Amino acid sequence: MALAEDHMDWRRLIDAPELTRFVTEALQAAGARQSDAVVTAEVLVAADLGGVESHGVARLRRYVEGLRTGDINRSAQPELVSDKGSVGVLDAHNGLGQPALRDAVDLAVSKAKRFGTSVVMVRRSNHMGIAGWFAERAASAGVLAMVSTNAVPQVAPMGTNEPMFGTNPLCYAVPTSTGPLCFDGATSIVSRGKLEQLDRLDQPMLEGWALGPDGRTTTDIPETVQGLIHRKGYALLPLGGGDKDHGGHKGSALSLLVELLCGPLAGAQWSRHTYQNGEGGLGHFVFCLDLDALGEADAIRAGVSELAHEVRSGAPTETHSPVRMPGDRRRLTTKMRREGGIPVLESVVADLNDIADVVGIKPVSALTYSA
Amino acid sequence: MALAEDHMDWRRLIDAPELTRFVTEALQAAGARQSDAVVTAEVLVAADLGGVESHGVARLRRYVEGLRTGDINRSAQPELVSDKGSVGVLDAHNGLGQPALRDAVDLAVSKAKRFGTSVVMVRRSNHMGIAGWFAERAASAGVLAMVSTNAVPQVAPMGTNEPMFGTNPLCYAVPTSTGPLCFDGATSIVSRGKLEQLDRLDQPMLEGWALGPDGRTTTDIPETVQGLIHRKGYALLPLGGGDKDHGGHKGSALSLLVELLCGPLAGAQWSRHTYQNGEGGLGHFVFCLDLDALGEADAIRAGVSELAHEVRSGAPTETHSPVRMPGDRRRLTTKMRREGGIPVLESVVADLNDIADVVGIKPVSALTYSA
Repeated sequence: MALAEDHMDWRRLIDAPELTRFVTEALQAAGARQSDAVVTAEVLVAADLGGVESHGVARLRRYVEGLRTGDINRSAQPELVSDKGSVGVLDAHNGLGQPALRDAVDLAVSKAKRFGTSVVMVRRSNHMGIAGWFAERAASAGVLAMVSTNAVPQVAPMGTNEPMFGTNPLCYAVPTSTGPLCFDGATSIVSRGKLEQLDRLDQPMLEGWALGPDGRTTTDIPETVQGLIHRKGYALLPLGGGDKDHGGHKGSALSLLVELLCGPLAGAQWSRHTYQNGEGGLGHFVFCLDLDALGEADAIRAGVSELAHEVRSGAPTETHSPVRMPGDRRRLTTKMRREGGIPVLESVVADLNDIADVVGIKPVSALTYSA
Repeated sequence: MALAEDHMDWRRLIDAPELTRFVTEALQAAGARQSDAVVTAEVLVAADLGGVESHGVARLRRYVEGLRTGDINRSAQPELVSDKGSVGVLDAHNGLGQPALRDAVDLAVSKAKRFGTSVVMVRRSNHMGIAGWFAERAASAGVLAMVSTNAVPQVAPMGTNEPMFGTNPLCYAVPTSTGPLCFDGATSIVSRGKLEQLDRLDQPMLEGWALGPDGRTTTDIPETVQGLIHRKGYALLPLGGGDKDHGGHKGSALSLLVELLCGPLAGAQWSRHTYQNGEGGLGHFVFCLDLDALGEADAIRAGVSELAHEVRSGAPTETHSPVRMPGDRRRLTTKMRREGGIPVLESVVADLNDIADVVGIKPVSALTYSA
């Protein structure tokens, strides 16, 4: 797929510390506490570092606007409202999702170290960036972690045209001998963020990713994105697609699982009840399983690494294309971008500097660069 | 899809208690202890009752032969080999999978009632039928449950043609106001059992379900089934298919998660190391989360029911086809078949009676009936 020859495809190179500085200052200028701004910036920049631009600083405007309008509570402190054995529930008080979920992960890890397993839920929360950042944080402490969140409804389960579920990531991270192995993916085929990103790059969307108001598959990105945002009969399809032939009922059931965990079980809002009355009302789910409770943690880590090695050693279906494990590409991209800077689309840089104007901070320092 | 007009499509009607009697006696005659035979029969017949014939009595021969040859240990007693807080590990000692996993579920439920969450693993186990039976058993006790197992490798993760993972079900059950809501599905698009069932019915398989030795999609069922059994370069594809376009990397990652949990984390065999040296060596995973630890269990159940109701009320994409939730069809089929008997393919009835001859028990009593 060739990039369109359009100036919007040009990118500028931003050093990770400078991008983090910028995002932190922007969030603080919009009213966030410093400690909340720091963790939120770290999660957003981690997405850009890893090549998950759909969840990176391209979303900064929504956070800044949410904080400025009060749709996101600037002074919220996550509160532990229920604490029973290995299970905890945090109320995010409609604050930023990142600090609340970070607290939930840290609590879940400490509970898993004590009890062997744990679940910590967050309710009354907002968007929290990439789930993988949180799962990896937990896995770095020696536990297998699963992290999920619900979101504004955009995914139609098999059998209907109506968006009922968020893109609802199922994310896990497991310790290996060389660091966490982490998968982080929406239970829909693609996320809206991915469509927005393709649109910025002038790349096409494929048949079978989304439905239009007529119940048929659509490949018009701008219409689909706008139709999803304004709830005009558009819907993303779950993993497996819109019918049973290729497992649409399975993707629907996985998306439903996340909605159940992060909605009714977390005591949070769900589906069409999210984003009502000026609150996201989202829920997050964290599960931890301590390897030390299962047996010799080092031996388990070695087994995980061995399994990963065997999968990577499978005969590749395309020449020169070794089999990848979840996170391989993201880790490599992160390494390169930490060293050489993060290529950010010209349009996103312009948006960041417009935000800088509005909140009154120094523009982001970027080098001209072509992708 | 029309049924072929072939005598193998004829079915005979067997009452559930009679089918259970027959399976129990066959397993006992093959050497299983009575209590093990009872639970194994219950799980197998539950599959036929629910319309999941791919996991029902059509598989009895493998159990009987395994017990007779000693590939399945007739006198195994599941043993709790590790018990740390909310985490337990059972060694099935190469016995039948069903009694071992039933014990694991019961232990996981009692641990979840005490600690809030729990994980119980089983290692050195064998095939255990439908995961849904076990998850529903747990959910009936008031917990959300997830149950998985690994299996003989048949699924090629994205990027390779080599089967690395079992069909690895991701199964969950959650209490509602009216009983458990349960999803049970392989992380591959279809299972080999499903292909065998389509073959019995002379129905076609679809493109994109499996790869042949040339790395291309195949639609020849007998060749695919034989190629999977004899490991001749055939592989099933994960949910999302063989490339990234429709999320093959996501299905691969979910299948990997199950292989990790049930393999290295359970201390069991995995991938190509299963079914070596006369042992299945499989692992099972059970996770329970007590609703009482999260909040008011009745309110949570009501919330789950409300979410299910809203999804079912979505505008259906086909007229007269209401949106279904996981398990809806299986529950309806179970009700009908409990009352009216289980239609079993003539070829399967013949196989059962051949087994009866071999182990020396009374044939199954079946009424002639056409599907």
